[in-house]
Amino acid sequence: MGKGRLEAFSDGVLAIIITIMVLELKIPHGDDVASLRPLIPVFLSYLLSFVYIGIYWNNHHHMLHATQSVNGAILWANLHLLFWLSLVPFATGWMGENHFAPAPTALYGVPLLMAAIAYWLLQRAILRHQGHHSLLAAAVGSDFKGKLSPVFYLAAIPLAFVRPWIAGGLYVTVALIWLVPDRRIEKVLSSAKAEESETR
Amino acid sequence: MGKGRLEAFSDGVLAIIITIMVLELKIPHGDDVASLRPLIPVFLSYLLSFVYIGIYWNNHHHMLHATQSVNGAILWANLHLLFWLSLVPFATGWMGENHFAPAPTALYGVPLLMAAIAYWLLQRAILRHQGHHSLLAAAVGSDFKGKLSPVFYLAAIPLAFVRPWIAGGLYVTVALIWLVPDRRIEKVLSSAKAEESETR
Amino acid sequence: MGKGRLEAFSDGVLAIIITIMVLELKIPHGDDVASLRPLIPVFLSYLLSFVYIGIYWNNHHHMLHATQSVNGAILWANLHLLFWLSLVPFATGWMGENHFAPAPTALYGVPLLMAAIAYWLLQRAILRHQGHHSLLAAAVGSDFKGKLSPVFYLAAIPLAFVRPWIAGGLYVTVALIWLVPDRRIEKVLSSAKAEESETR
Amino acid sequence: MGKGRLEAFSDGVLAIIITIMVLELKIPHGDDVASLRPLIPVFLSYLLSFVYIGIYWNNHHHMLHATQSVNGAILWANLHLLFWLSLVPFATGWMGENHFAPAPTALYGVPLLMAAIAYWLLQRAILRHQGHHSLLAAAVGSDFKGKLSPVFYLAAIPLAFVRPWIAGGLYVTVALIWLVPDRRIEKVLSSAKAEESETR
Repeated sequence: MGKGRLEAFSDGVLAIIITIMVLELKIPHGDDVASLRPLIPVFLSYLLSFVYIGIYWNNHHHMLHATQSVNGAILWANLHLLFWLSLVPFATGWMGENHFAPAPTALYGVPLLMAAIAYWLLQRAILRHQGHHSLLAAAVGSDFKGKLSPVFYLAAIPLAFVRPWIAGGLYVTVALIWLVPDRRIEKVLSSAKAEESETR
Repeated sequence: MGKGRLEAFSDGVLAIIITIMVLELKIPHGDDVASLRPLIPVFLSYLLSFVYIGIYWNNHHHMLHATQSVNGAILWANLHLLFWLSLVPFATGWMGENHFAPAPTALYGVPLLMAAIAYWLLQRAILRHQGHHSLLAAAVGSDFKGKLSPVFYLAAIPLAFVRPWIAGGLYVTVALIWLVPDRRIEKVLSSAKAEESETR
Repeated sequence: MGKGRLEAFSDGVLAIIITIMVLELKIPHGDDVASLRPLIPVFLSYLLSFVYIGIYWNNHHHMLHATQSVNGAILWANLHLLFWLSLVPFATGWMGENHFAPAPTALYGVPLLMAAIAYWLLQRAILRHQGHHSLLAAAVGSDFKGKLSPVFYLAAIPLAFVRPWIAGGLYVTVALIWLVPDRRIEKVLSSAKAEESETR
Repeated sequence: MGKGRLEAFSDGVLAIIITIMVLELKIPHGDDVASLRPLIPVFLSYLLSFVYIGIYWNNHHHMLHATQSVNGAILWANLHLLFWLSLVPFATGWMGENHFAPAPTALYGVPLLMAAIAYWLLQRAILRHQGHHSLLAAAVGSDFKGKLSPVFYLAAIPLAFVRPWIAGGLYVTVALIWLVPDRRIEKVLSSAKAEESETR
């Protein structure tokens, strides 16, 4: 079964998630610059979540790029991932509007944690379908980042009740870890192509 | 006529339906964990509807995968299906916000019932266009689940006025029936491919 | 220049237009069947607009299907069409919430009229790009429906101030005229294909 | 890496941005023509932003059309552009609802300025990936408009506090500069094709 529609549907859902988050930036009643000030935490939480969804889109893009075909298990693993990501706008809005209060900052980690687990399940479903000697298996490798992120979220959730800024710092750190370009898959793919052309 | 745009448009509408439902999860005013409690029924009804839309997307994907081309009747049958599915967010929100009260729980079954009928009409329109000896015809077979689901909805709608939880249980049961992987179409397609390659 | 992205972008915008209209179906506060009654005109105006957007999507699909490539003029003519269609949800909501009062019912005709003109301009831009002896030119023919519709809208707008139901009747009539399957383009295309295969 | 999903995701985000802006056109409570009057500035700012997003979609379409493949840097440069464009609906709504008051009119220039810079960064990332002797490099040429626009925005932002209509005039001027069909890329592409066919 082709992967085209899975990509198209995921692109659609991710595009909508990333865009409806901005609706939480409610237009202020005042018309002076000062009336924008209460929006700063909402804006910052929007920025953070935009980066997170961007990272997921990017990784999803890379992973599916190295995938040849999909099956029913992959379709559902993908929907499971989209479900948790669809809750990010809610968590983002609650955290932003409450200026990073403890409970909302803790809750923000829950969809991130669940999405990280869902991504790992999706990766496993694809690897099981493709075979563990596939290009993707080589590209994923030890998946250090993928294993590190849930640990950070698991730490951030209780720590948000101690000091919310610690949890915030952990969320930002995970985003930065991922933002550093992940050339693993790109590398393996291009070296595979290089080998292919050498063999010819 | 190609099926590409029908798939793309359906993907777009389904992606939006699945994502705007989450807007019903209104951000609470309080900033403690307790203020999330009233959202639990809204969350549960969102989860149920997410699974339903996911099932429709999945089945739609499989059915169109086994379809070669489309005609005007199929385009309209598809729009008819999308119309009823577009009412699911409304029914979901009303049921969730009223904590599964009788009338909203009954109404929730109406778009589900109509969508099931619309899906059946779409399937028929495709079969009429493709011929009853097509791959799809073999794959659909007796369509046991497709015939069972409307019976459950028809039972759930009046029963919601007796005991809402009976209707809720029936909705969950139908979702579970469909979640069990439906390998019919996948099977027929892969055995057809196997035969093809044997013949070669 | 390929037509792929023009189709994809139009599909996206039309999918969103059709789906955000349903957000006007605001969830009622009551939890009994009676609380749905005030929503009936909103529902009916949603249904009418859903059919209209469906017709535009359908016709757009057919027209672009018979188009080989696009240029800058076509891209802008298409955006112009999408602009007027993007105002349909607003007009729909105002008409529905005011139970088909005169001014909202008149205003509903304005985006429809402008979209009909924009569609005609888009068709002309494509014909100019493709040549008047193209397949599309033959398929469009005298374009009777396309010329009739604006006349109906032009009549409906002032008549809405006399009797809103006359305007409403005209809007429904135009929708029905288009719903009757338009096999012109399908016919010409399939006969062209038949001729081609005969010649071979 | 293919450019297909980058185009699809961008189309999705731009389609949603352009369509959610219309949600700021809040349905008035009155049912007479006069109740539409306060919406005129909202409508005008929607129209301006629709044209801007349309220009970006158009230019994006042309630029990607002349691009063969993408890399990680391009994916992130593209997300960066989409981030600033996603703030246009907020700025549009604030400006429209406050009837072009100084601060909102100044703020409107900020996402436009940042998007212009982001577009330039995206263009550079693509050129670096494709080589400076590529078709795109020839097509972009001196990029006069691309360099002029940020100057206009930089002037408009402080001038909005002096006289908002000056800033408004500058925004409209930039839009008109871009609306004049930009045949550079189309020209270079078609002349390249002509050369190719001559050589054959």
